[in-house]
Amino acid sequence: MENVLGLRCLHCGKEYPAKAGIFTCEVCGQKAGILDVEYDYGKIKRSTSRESLARVKDPSIFRYLPFLPIRPETPRPHLRVGGSPLYRPPGLGRALGLGKLYVKDDGQNPTASLKDRASVIAVIKAVEEKATTVACSSTGNAASSLAGSAAAMGIPSYIFVPARAPQGKIAQLLVFGAHVISVQGNYEDTFRLSSQAIERWGWYNRNAAVNPYLVEGKKTVALEIAEQLNWQVPDWVVLSVGDGCTIAGVWKGFRDLYNVGWIDRLPKLAGIQSTGCSPLADAFLENRPWQPAEENTLADSIAVGVPRNPDKALRAVRESGGTMAAVSDGEILAAMRLLGATAGVFGEPAGVTGVAGLKRLSAAGVIKEEDTVVAIVTGNGLKDVKNAIAAVGEPLKVEPSLEALIPKLAKEGWR
Amino acid sequence: MENVLGLRCLHCGKEYPAKAGIFTCEVCGQKAGILDVEYDYGKIKRSTSRESLARVKDPSIFRYLPFLPIRPETPRPHLRVGGSPLYRPPGLGRALGLGKLYVKDDGQNPTASLKDRASVIAVIKAVEEKATTVACSSTGNAASSLAGSAAAMGIPSYIFVPARAPQGKIAQLLVFGAHVISVQGNYEDTFRLSSQAIERWGWYNRNAAVNPYLVEGKKTVALEIAEQLNWQVPDWVVLSVGDGCTIAGVWKGFRDLYNVGWIDRLPKLAGIQSTGCSPLADAFLENRPWQPAEENTLADSIAVGVPRNPDKALRAVRESGGTMAAVSDGEILAAMRLLGATAGVFGEPAGVTGVAGLKRLSAAGVIKEEDTVVAIVTGNGLKDVKNAIAAVGEPLKVEPSLEALIPKLAKEGWR
Repeated sequence: MENVLGLRCLHCGKEYPAKAGIFTCEVCGQKAGILDVEYDYGKIKRSTSRESLARVKDPSIFRYLPFLPIRPETPRPHLRVGGSPLYRPPGLGRALGLGKLYVKDDGQNPTASLKDRASVIAVIKAVEEKATTVACSSTGNAASSLAGSAAAMGIPSYIFVPARAPQGKIAQLLVFGAHVISVQGNYEDTFRLSSQAIERWGWYNRNAAVNPYLVEGKKTVALEIAEQLNWQVPDWVVLSVGDGCTIAGVWKGFRDLYNVGWIDRLPKLAGIQSTGCSPLADAFLENRPWQPAEENTLADSIAVGVPRNPDKALRAVRESGGTMAAVSDGEILAAMRLLGATAGVFGEPAGVTGVAGLKRLSAAGVIKEEDTVVAIVTGNGLKDVKNAIAAVGEPLKVEPSLEALIPKLAKEGWR
Repeated sequence: MENVLGLRCLHCGKEYPAKAGIFTCEVCGQKAGILDVEYDYGKIKRSTSRESLARVKDPSIFRYLPFLPIRPETPRPHLRVGGSPLYRPPGLGRALGLGKLYVKDDGQNPTASLKDRASVIAVIKAVEEKATTVACSSTGNAASSLAGSAAAMGIPSYIFVPARAPQGKIAQLLVFGAHVISVQGNYEDTFRLSSQAIERWGWYNRNAAVNPYLVEGKKTVALEIAEQLNWQVPDWVVLSVGDGCTIAGVWKGFRDLYNVGWIDRLPKLAGIQSTGCSPLADAFLENRPWQPAEENTLADSIAVGVPRNPDKALRAVRESGGTMAAVSDGEILAAMRLLGATAGVFGEPAGVTGVAGLKRLSAAGVIKEEDTVVAIVTGNGLKDVKNAIAAVGEPLKVEPSLEALIPKLAKEGWR
């Protein structure tokens, strides 16, 4: 927090102090997108270096405290958020025709998704702003992550989920002791009701589309990638896009590092959506303003027909010189199998959508064999076993005798 | 591997070289339990220290390479196995009346259970022994962890599951590309067929009841706990017990550290079973030999009526001066809610059974307020959503309007 200069509207440039209750621009309004947290990069550079960071033992996102909009002395949930592994799975690289492919498995977070990075910041900001209750609306992962962080911090959470949210995610919320409100409508209905409730009862607002601090948590995935690659910036970072907040966060992270001179260039971002719900990819590819879309994809975490952070997302992709793509649900399920079988990583549909897009972009020659590529897996497949079952076939059924098994395995070469 | 002296039978003391294919004592037979890996502790002490360990960057179990029965040069799966967080959740401590309570969340492993620690060793040993295929019979965490590690290593896995295995667990295996063989019979049929197939085709055997190297992977959870506590040994380590291999591994880990002089005392172990299947707890508490038991508990990962490692488990508890307890399924589900709501940790039923037992032992005064206690959560609750739902009930359903919500929240004090 000591390095935060204030907030600035990305549209009109108006500046605001980083104070309680200020989330959106009073001139441009909420629809124009949230404010951006600005830092004194010179101050960060004077107090911190890549070398001093290397001596920090804490593997969690709080190792990047100088880049976070929180006070050092504020109590934090005890959960280990971030510090997720960056793998280099050779089998997946071969399958995708990529020589330098890394996978960032953010399904290995406390509540099994990247959203923990944002939610833990929300809970800390809530404490700083003396709020006693936190709330959000979410298709699932933001919700479970907020519930988990709030439980660890010992403060109540109210979570609004659309009726279609998978059972695993609901169970997680309830185990964390959250007050769960299942809104009998779509994500848009859910978001609206949560906003009304938050305003009426004065709860701390964790909606990523409104709260400017959450993207600051999400950006830590980029800080980690850079540090794990020993400050060698990848050519491409590929990930799924729903609301647009996560890809905006990734961009913010790399820009932060560039601004303090810890990296000497920026990666290209590839934002992947499902063809069943691709308002941002369509807008990008057709070079036109985005339009609301249907939500017809099994990748529930990115089934967002009315994205809340479209401008930050599109700006991130464009500024990076990157691209977007939309892949079918069939390609998403195939990516789930490919990632599992070649890397031993089980991602949820939205979590593997980046890998599906990477396959497409590699085949199209947009991403090249010699490029260094990081695919971010944003959530764990255990959150959505129903769709995993859809992705895989049936096991081999056999009577309990070796005589019955032998002919069945003969075709696989076992005799 | 360079520090391994050999294998020794715990019953007759017969020694064997640590060579391919030697798993059980030829004198005492398989039923008497598996062999124990012996180390040259003097050699470990000369090459390694707590200080040198502190400089190792790798957070995974391979930071403890001098204590592992693998060769340093053997290729390893890229997965980050181990390095799971140790939390000190104040709310849970208060709820249990314990002043110094820690939770080791081993649900944060690549396939979301402690079993990854064993399976990754199995895959490495398979490579060392020039096996090209790994196999086991299981429906649970051993299976998914073996499938995940094998996928990451790029070697095929054959997993034998009984016909009744739940679809969700089969899906996880298939996502990892395992060859899943659904044996149309019961678990005993499945285990027998897997043994026959393993023998016929020379696959590497990951059945934990047979392979002596797996417990060496499991012991790393104890090494981590000690290091995370800065080599201050807790008074108690509490965890669930099924087959008995995990608690035997925990004991082996602490004894290893004691033998090299890195810790100056040993913790007491508390092994917890479900009253629906408590052959070892009953034997311990009634001071008699164990007898086969029914398997009537929802904690499926510890529903083991005929434990395969009873002697190592009971010896561990007795040598430590610890105790055992059995808790009801109701206490297990209550512990799931308590752990989730006060610590933000979501454990599967067997994963939280230790916490349930801790509550019982704290209330009984066996474990005292001033004791330093570590409860190990062995698996993630997302693996068993059905039972989580049984633990927590349903969310509040509401139509998408504030008018519909207000009366529903009035009873919680929001007006």
